[in-house]
Amino acid sequence: MNPVEIIKLKRNNFPLSKLQIEYFIEGYLSGEVTEYQMSAFLMAVYFNDMNEEETFHLTEIMLHSGETIDLSFLDLPKVDKHSTGGVGDKTSLILAPLVASCGIAVPMISGRGLGHTGGTLDKLESIPGFNVNYSIKDFKRIISETGVVLIGQTSELAPADKRIYALRDVTATVECIPLITSSIMSKKLAEGADGIVFDVKIGNGANLPDKDKSIELAKKLISTSKKFGKKAIAVLSDMEQPLGNKIGNWLEVEECIEIMNGAIIPDLYKLNNVLSGAMIYLGGKANSISEGEKIAGEKLMDKSAYKKFLEIVRVQNGDEAYIKDWANYKRPKFKKDIVADEDGFISEMTAVDFGYSAIELGCGRKKVDDSIDYLSGIILHKKKGNEVRKGDLICELFAENEQKLFSGEKRLKGAVKISKNKTDSVNLIIDILD
Amino acid sequence: MNPVEIIKLKRNNFPLSKLQIEYFIEGYLSGEVTEYQMSAFLMAVYFNDMNEEETFHLTEIMLHSGETIDLSFLDLPKVDKHSTGGVGDKTSLILAPLVASCGIAVPMISGRGLGHTGGTLDKLESIPGFNVNYSIKDFKRIISETGVVLIGQTSELAPADKRIYALRDVTATVECIPLITSSIMSKKLAEGADGIVFDVKIGNGANLPDKDKSIELAKKLISTSKKFGKKAIAVLSDMEQPLGNKIGNWLEVEECIEIMNGAIIPDLYKLNNVLSGAMIYLGGKANSISEGEKIAGEKLMDKSAYKKFLEIVRVQNGDEAYIKDWANYKRPKFKKDIVADEDGFISEMTAVDFGYSAIELGCGRKKVDDSIDYLSGIILHKKKGNEVRKGDLICELFAENEQKLFSGEKRLKGAVKISKNKTDSVNLIIDILD
Repeated sequence: MNPVEIIKLKRNNFPLSKLQIEYFIEGYLSGEVTEYQMSAFLMAVYFNDMNEEETFHLTEIMLHSGETIDLSFLDLPKVDKHSTGGVGDKTSLILAPLVASCGIAVPMISGRGLGHTGGTLDKLESIPGFNVNYSIKDFKRIISETGVVLIGQTSELAPADKRIYALRDVTATVECIPLITSSIMSKKLAEGADGIVFDVKIGNGANLPDKDKSIELAKKLISTSKKFGKKAIAVLSDMEQPLGNKIGNWLEVEECIEIMNGAIIPDLYKLNNVLSGAMIYLGGKANSISEGEKIAGEKLMDKSAYKKFLEIVRVQNGDEAYIKDWANYKRPKFKKDIVADEDGFISEMTAVDFGYSAIELGCGRKKVDDSIDYLSGIILHKKKGNEVRKGDLICELFAENEQKLFSGEKRLKGAVKISKNKTDSVNLIIDILD
Repeated sequence: MNPVEIIKLKRNNFPLSKLQIEYFIEGYLSGEVTEYQMSAFLMAVYFNDMNEEETFHLTEIMLHSGETIDLSFLDLPKVDKHSTGGVGDKTSLILAPLVASCGIAVPMISGRGLGHTGGTLDKLESIPGFNVNYSIKDFKRIISETGVVLIGQTSELAPADKRIYALRDVTATVECIPLITSSIMSKKLAEGADGIVFDVKIGNGANLPDKDKSIELAKKLISTSKKFGKKAIAVLSDMEQPLGNKIGNWLEVEECIEIMNGAIIPDLYKLNNVLSGAMIYLGGKANSISEGEKIAGEKLMDKSAYKKFLEIVRVQNGDEAYIKDWANYKRPKFKKDIVADEDGFISEMTAVDFGYSAIELGCGRKKVDDSIDYLSGIILHKKKGNEVRKGDLICELFAENEQKLFSGEKRLKGAVKISKNKTDSVNLIIDILD
């Protein structure tokens, strides 16, 4: 076996055996397969895909490239959620404490902002003192104390994924279903959950370009989970417009606190409940997703979710007082109002543009070592389908300086469209697969 | 512009502008574009091809990545030949002196053996003392003295090609028409010829797998030549079986000497005459290829080609006495006869197997730094269509040691097929395009 032979097989559209994939990935980690050979291989996979067997083997090999966390000592069902990434998508911060408050352990390893999408770790770090860097030992200790833990990927977990992921980002091989699947699954399987709910985004703000591809990804995530003996459900949800009304890091934490204190934010509330309901169902605490949804609604209403959230903040070293002070809105220095320039109905609020605008405002990184302004972001006052009159406030932009405010505003040009006619209502939950 | 953007454009099948290709290739040479980005790009080109414009730009940029040789001081037509590579393909050694003896300058930059195919430089170096390493200054001096020069690629010519070619070899991106075209053309255009004859091989021993691809390559070589203001003809020739009767380094030089001294070797004679005829026609010394062929035949017959060949050997420091002593056959220590195991007609002599067998015998390299046994090789006593009786000698294998002889024999298993029925005659010259 040699690396060129294996690249050539994939290039010529022959399925690879477990041994061949193993040789290639392990060779990459040991240095026998070079970076340029891996990138040629990834591009060949982009074009020729991988079948279910190959994806399974790739996932397994990447999973076992590092340690796996054994949570069998914990006498609780263990369920996690993974989102393929969106704009204003903050459900993790609500459903993790909510589901944990139902007696289901939630071992959650999250990521940072990527491209136009936000990241759970960045949002958590907008809480002063909040620590997301723990060893596997601490991970186990925290989850056995509070039933939930929110951390970042450690170098011990799936190191092959970490290197391949970084390479994909700089070689235009990100949008590839078997590579996305094995990347997500190798991390999720290392966590020790026995059930996973996937939130697969569809629309302009999603990481995959078209609906069919997203459905294919959802199916592959479920089939791969099942091959590893995990229960899995995929929720296909709309990402044509941002989720909820706030985009940014602290702004999104704030919105989660609001909803955990009874605020009414229809789309965020609905998606959170469906995802939580699916997790509660997979954790065996409800007989159906809809029964799980009902329980989720109660846990928001009786503030169980909020109490568990405060506990997480406390245990992970965050400033609890800062959270409790949420109603004294913390805003950065500069603000710009965007208003309607005509009468009509909002027909588009392009999620991807709002995502990139938020990056310009300081919410995310353009380069790996960029710093983040935690208070910057966008507050939406209208969403798709809402009626507006000329001059009505559509959204507010917030930034730490005028330059960023200006760039954020510029990036939003054309993102909001107003139509004379009433527009169709948004179909938030497109499908649920299991 | 950034490298990922350009890889993505090609991956998504958008044609690239001259500026984009230039940025990418120059970035590669300067280090801004990494090896792994180049290899991802090459694989994307493998899958999505390049149109004529893109191939032209890529060629031009690679050509101008180094020096170009200006031969305008030479008051002669200048014509070269390039073969896409085959087994037993030794025409360069005959036609270079032959065409030069007609008053046409032949500035020829050749390569070494690659894969299963032999290389002109290795064959020349089987002549003791023969030097193929000259500077551009010496290249000009020699061609103005003898009208012909045979050297290897210097580091001054098309350095972008040299690096990309090496990368393609280890990333399974060799068999790709725009990349082959730009690689061949950037070197050939740097030589200073004003006409080029391409010998594009078709069949199992060719570097491109199927006939249609070879025809496409031939067309692309011609159209690219014309865009650069060069005259061009492509001869599509059979490479289902080895060309001529001898395979190896010195063995092939020997066969060329034989044919330049009147030996009758039908296929080698015919192909050499067609290629020479096309070169003589492009050089303006004949009104048609067939008139050129007639002249070529005469130059073999009256030994003008042989005399010019001896002059080349003398000027490039080779041992003339060693050449003149050709009839005292020089053979290595070990020999093995392969005989027919049944009566019938030879229906197949698979060129690619003979090529790989010759490598095993010591004629070529498996790794870049392998050394070569110049006397080893294969002599064919039968070719396709010949009638054989059980026990008849089909070919002789020669090697420096028994291990190599054994490996060479083993690699030849199944390469020769005998059929009970008379087989169709070989169509050597498949087509001529201009």
